[in-house]
Amino acid sequence: MKIAFVIFEGMTALDFIGIYDPVTRLRTMDFKPDLEWEVCAYSAEVKDSTGLHFTPTRVGEPLHDYDMVIVPGGFGTRKLVEDAGFLQWLRSAEPCKFKLSVCTGSLLLGAAKFLAGKTATTHRNAFNDLRRFCPSVVDRKIVDADEIITAREVASSIDLGLYLCEKMAGREARERICRQMDYQCSL
Amino acid sequence: MKIAFVIFEGMTALDFIGIYDPVTRLRTMDFKPDLEWEVCAYSAEVKDSTGLHFTPTRVGEPLHDYDMVIVPGGFGTRKLVEDAGFLQWLRSAEPCKFKLSVCTGSLLLGAAKFLAGKTATTHRNAFNDLRRFCPSVVDRKIVDADEIITAREVASSIDLGLYLCEKMAGREARERICRQMDYQCSL
Repeated sequence: MKIAFVIFEGMTALDFIGIYDPVTRLRTMDFKPDLEWEVCAYSAEVKDSTGLHFTPTRVGEPLHDYDMVIVPGGFGTRKLVEDAGFLQWLRSAEPCKFKLSVCTGSLLLGAAKFLAGKTATTHRNAFNDLRRFCPSVVDRKIVDADEIITAREVASSIDLGLYLCEKMAGREARERICRQMDYQCSL
Repeated sequence: MKIAFVIFEGMTALDFIGIYDPVTRLRTMDFKPDLEWEVCAYSAEVKDSTGLHFTPTRVGEPLHDYDMVIVPGGFGTRKLVEDAGFLQWLRSAEPCKFKLSVCTGSLLLGAAKFLAGKTATTHRNAFNDLRRFCPSVVDRKIVDADEIITAREVASSIDLGLYLCEKMAGREARERICRQMDYQCSL
């Protein structure tokens, strides 16, 4: 299993790190020793919405070889849904079996045409924006639909990460990771 | 109010970002428009425990001018409690009114001699390590004692952030930030 954590200018850092922490524990806590991941960006310069710098491990490389792509949200999405170059790059994730998003990251999945005919969620302030790209927008913390898995808002990224831990390594792995993180999972 | 978010090699990224998100929303959501912060490191090279790069905004500069210093945890703390240069740098935070930590960040506060005579918490696996530096180690999610505020494990950083939001801007600010983040605060 090889995961692409997508990052971009104007993302919300916690959308990215909230899921990155529990999922990477699958390897560091030895539940999935063969888990691999990269931090992937379209451009080398990535700052979150507060100006905090992040450094991708892959820049501009196509995403088709990953099993899973995970897209955070943030104010930067508003510009990127109109950015043809970025969307073409994100479209290279088309063959990836699983496509996930946190918060307004679903707008990017939608603008890349991955949500046609699907059900998804996003930040509650962005439900109308998402309807442009997705026929069925629902108000749930996590929506798992046909290999498209979307989480609602910022801190839901942790819940989505723990949800994935269970999906990939079982209930006990998820519970041990949850305990290690001191997190009261609300799923 | 000026905050130093300390980062270091081998930290846990979520310890840092979990508190950074709600606290920086105090400014971005206009509750504390005059809130300032820097991301401070002793050395320019900072990677979290998985190898993810972080970029400080201040390198090696003394910390005495901040009102608050916030120290994350992570496996890197085990080495840093023996690192005289790092500890001397952290000691420059002595005049800061508030000193906070997440998870094993309290070991660093302790090694910098900020916990003598205080009560604090840390990751449950590190209670014995913390007793070297702190006479009263307690098993609570957040411990607020004489301007030293410590949080237990990784995801508690979000709880600590929301606790600070209330302390700095009142209950309503905290509730609106909590809602914006989709977080079910367990305090």
